[in-house]
Amino acid sequence: MIALAENRYGKSRVRLVQVKRRGDRNDFREWTVEILFTGDFASCFVEGDNRNILPTDTMKNTVYSLARESSQTCLEEFGQELADFFLDHNPQLSSTQVSISEKSWEHLLVEGKPHPTTFVQSSSELQTSETSRARDGASSVWSGLDNLVIMKTAGSEFAGFLKDSLTTLPEAADRLLGTALRARWKYSTMDVSFRTLRKSIRQILLGVFAEHISKSVQHTLYAMGEVVLQQIPEVDEIELNMPNRHCLLVDLSRFGQDNPNEIFVPVDEPHGYIEARIRRQD
Amino acid sequence: MIALAENRYGKSRVRLVQVKRRGDRNDFREWTVEILFTGDFASCFVEGDNRNILPTDTMKNTVYSLARESSQTCLEEFGQELADFFLDHNPQLSSTQVSISEKSWEHLLVEGKPHPTTFVQSSSELQTSETSRARDGASSVWSGLDNLVIMKTAGSEFAGFLKDSLTTLPEAADRLLGTALRARWKYSTMDVSFRTLRKSIRQILLGVFAEHISKSVQHTLYAMGEVVLQQIPEVDEIELNMPNRHCLLVDLSRFGQDNPNEIFVPVDEPHGYIEARIRRQD
Amino acid sequence: MIALAENRYGKSRVRLVQVKRRGDRNDFREWTVEILFTGDFASCFVEGDNRNILPTDTMKNTVYSLARESSQTCLEEFGQELADFFLDHNPQLSSTQVSISEKSWEHLLVEGKPHPTTFVQSSSELQTSETSRARDGASSVWSGLDNLVIMKTAGSEFAGFLKDSLTTLPEAADRLLGTALRARWKYSTMDVSFRTLRKSIRQILLGVFAEHISKSVQHTLYAMGEVVLQQIPEVDEIELNMPNRHCLLVDLSRFGQDNPNEIFVPVDEPHGYIEARIRRQD
Amino acid sequence: MIALAENRYGKSRVRLVQVKRRGDRNDFREWTVEILFTGDFASCFVEGDNRNILPTDTMKNTVYSLARESSQTCLEEFGQELADFFLDHNPQLSSTQVSISEKSWEHLLVEGKPHPTTFVQSSSELQTSETSRARDGASSVWSGLDNLVIMKTAGSEFAGFLKDSLTTLPEAADRLLGTALRARWKYSTMDVSFRTLRKSIRQILLGVFAEHISKSVQHTLYAMGEVVLQQIPEVDEIELNMPNRHCLLVDLSRFGQDNPNEIFVPVDEPHGYIEARIRRQD
Repeated sequence: MIALAENRYGKSRVRLVQVKRRGDRNDFREWTVEILFTGDFASCFVEGDNRNILPTDTMKNTVYSLARESSQTCLEEFGQELADFFLDHNPQLSSTQVSISEKSWEHLLVEGKPHPTTFVQSSSELQTSETSRARDGASSVWSGLDNLVIMKTAGSEFAGFLKDSLTTLPEAADRLLGTALRARWKYSTMDVSFRTLRKSIRQILLGVFAEHISKSVQHTLYAMGEVVLQQIPEVDEIELNMPNRHCLLVDLSRFGQDNPNEIFVPVDEPHGYIEARIRRQD
Repeated sequence: MIALAENRYGKSRVRLVQVKRRGDRNDFREWTVEILFTGDFASCFVEGDNRNILPTDTMKNTVYSLARESSQTCLEEFGQELADFFLDHNPQLSSTQVSISEKSWEHLLVEGKPHPTTFVQSSSELQTSETSRARDGASSVWSGLDNLVIMKTAGSEFAGFLKDSLTTLPEAADRLLGTALRARWKYSTMDVSFRTLRKSIRQILLGVFAEHISKSVQHTLYAMGEVVLQQIPEVDEIELNMPNRHCLLVDLSRFGQDNPNEIFVPVDEPHGYIEARIRRQD
Repeated sequence: MIALAENRYGKSRVRLVQVKRRGDRNDFREWTVEILFTGDFASCFVEGDNRNILPTDTMKNTVYSLARESSQTCLEEFGQELADFFLDHNPQLSSTQVSISEKSWEHLLVEGKPHPTTFVQSSSELQTSETSRARDGASSVWSGLDNLVIMKTAGSEFAGFLKDSLTTLPEAADRLLGTALRARWKYSTMDVSFRTLRKSIRQILLGVFAEHISKSVQHTLYAMGEVVLQQIPEVDEIELNMPNRHCLLVDLSRFGQDNPNEIFVPVDEPHGYIEARIRRQD
Repeated sequence: MIALAENRYGKSRVRLVQVKRRGDRNDFREWTVEILFTGDFASCFVEGDNRNILPTDTMKNTVYSLARESSQTCLEEFGQELADFFLDHNPQLSSTQVSISEKSWEHLLVEGKPHPTTFVQSSSELQTSETSRARDGASSVWSGLDNLVIMKTAGSEFAGFLKDSLTTLPEAADRLLGTALRARWKYSTMDVSFRTLRKSIRQILLGVFAEHISKSVQHTLYAMGEVVLQQIPEVDEIELNMPNRHCLLVDLSRFGQDNPNEIFVPVDEPHGYIEARIRRQD
């Protein structure tokens, strides 16, 4: 017999700009929202019966309508509000997942002072969150960040590794280590200040990255996650993804020149892939 | 206590072009390979001990070296060969996963005939495979395709859906249905002709997409997967992902014109998201 | 004194899907239109006087409204219709330029036959056109194509080149030659069958690329353009852009293996850049 | 007769990372270089004679070799050095053009202080330069920036514009104005501090953008360029490109809600296109 197993449907890339007008000073936020529904939708898939299908266009409308009413200004709280709304209004759902990412916009500095109504996209880093709510009460909030592009020019080696007959990589006592960090962490409770903790966790991740004496990407990745768990008791587990974006030392000896670790070719592909999940354990 | 949970490392985007020179006629293939290792790498992550770490650069070298020796010409078989090689030569691994995608290149037609040594990239569709091998013997092969961009201009409706106070979507008796299909299916055995089955499954997916009287994307997605499972006994399960790439009917009544389902704006975002897994069940 | 020199404004990326419903069989086209206006807009730039500024939103509306009325099915003719419309209705313009690109969609083959209402995006190649109309009567039509990705695995060498102290490239008697062709050609008259000529020119470009015994990208580029001008008297000049997308031979001797021109790494960057304009001369 | 008209060849996307190691503190730069050669290359194009063709691979090597020797740290000066080198060593050239773009990397702040050897990619803005040198002595330096993404949430209207029968855009007394600024400016002399002037010009562009009471994108673009020319005598002309990246006000009245200019949908396409060149005039 053939049967439907897991299935999900929803709306991706619902884009939202919000301007809060507070006297002379504005706030500006740009979010991209994804909503996914899970439930017993077999009759839709198998028979084409749409009676339980809320259109994805309605999901999009809901994002805009709730954004107008909501007083929430952080991703996690608006994500929860959306997830609650969908679950409350749609008995056909068993669970819903809301993912929101926020672009980095800041007040433009004009003569050293933040301009009240002008903004600049300050990096390509994204702040992210994923809220899952289930009908039976289980729920979770993950917060994270994506595409945080960082580079160490000191304090990174890669040596003592396994060598086989196809290994040509030389050991490196002092190499560049660059990555585009993606991280997400799970809170043990909803009762936290998401904004404050996000800021602290981001600082920890960056601080450890900067200070760590790195034996490998894995080694630094683990150290970053470990300190987050040590210092932030509200975080249960953390996932880190750190592609190794190689900078290759250029061989200038062909031209009678030395290259004392100064001239590199950055390459996008191939790249190393390193990911791990680190968690508290009893 | 803080501990390492899941972790993986490897090399992504290893690109390979192979030219087989057979007399006057050449074969041309372009593959992109990703290799991921799983094992007990805690000492590397936690202590910076690299003795069990085969460099990802070596994984890259291995792809090229094995490609030279191998007589395999299909993704799945070369993927198995790579996975076997890594598992055999690296006792520290518990499992390895090899993913390969192939670009669409065809002999260029010159005056109606395939030119023996000139090729054209015939679409942005990718053929894909993922081979997982575990030390304890468990293994699996998934084959698939990605970014197959297709469109129905008839035989698609979306009506009878759930409406709430935020629903503004009109019912559509005759809408455009476009998607960028991603599919992957799992074989129950390695002892199949991957190339022949891939071709058959692709034809089934496209044939059902074309002929189906669609009540929704979900409805068509399920029908496509169901027929694959009905006709191809070697396939155990199939996953389909069909984003709904909307084409919006332009309101020309503002200009005193009708629009009998002829003039549309295609939009990339937001888009619907529909995915399901369909499998055999006892 | 400070003054406004050249200036242009308009609308980019106006996307249009057209479905022509002819009994059981449909036609499907996807175009992206750009419209640029030139004229005396100094008062707008300098003083903020918008009285001569037709909104770019109106340009977009015009594309959809004219598409509904038009019987034109080829890029060049619809481009002329748009350009004429804007020039006729906007005395403030000195000239207008309309660029249209068309995606490659074809009827899906089902059991070997074109399905009447299902389509597949058959490649990432674009067909292009640029129509310029000036108030004083001067006008031009360029047609072209973009992102036609092609590869020669034989008949291409690169040798006998200039060598200086920084040259390390070995001479190659038999290298891969791949490119993403962009071409555009100018017609000497509007009174041609754009569709027929486009097809012929595309076939000439591809045929010469396939058959040419190439001494360099430049050599093949010129040969391609030359034959177009020789065989198509309606074309005045042709511009060709052929980035050299390198496939680097992998050095397998490090592993005790030979590599008889079979195993390559394709790289996206850096790439060679070769462009030329070829024209008739008295 | 058929003849070669304009032609150029060279190397694109030569990527370079430079680390200057100054005691405990490092400098880090990431540049992408493009080199184009112009000269009498007809024999290469027409006859396949490569004797005057310096391989583009050699151009790439030259970038790395000169970067090692050079003490230049700003784009414009290294661009001149490269252009001079190629022109001096290659009598077959009539001119050469070197374009360099620099990614935005900054020292990472750790506990409020710049970390000496850790860097963060601080935005997706690029700093650019284009140096052209001709054999006969003519030369020019353009500096610029690209992809500077900025947004005004106040001080921008668009009203009083031309309306025709296809105009549906409402007048806006208070709209969002967002763009991805691309600018380049030409210096009247080489004898300037490129780094200081770049900083000043960037500040002027941003300051005017922030403070301008905008009647249109054109109006603000002109004001930005005008102030640069007024305040920086070393700049002869400036070109500005400011696509209008629309944020559309969401119609919430369908849901019984108002929208006092707070909830918007940002859209990537279509977008307005506005460009102008502003220059000194006698």
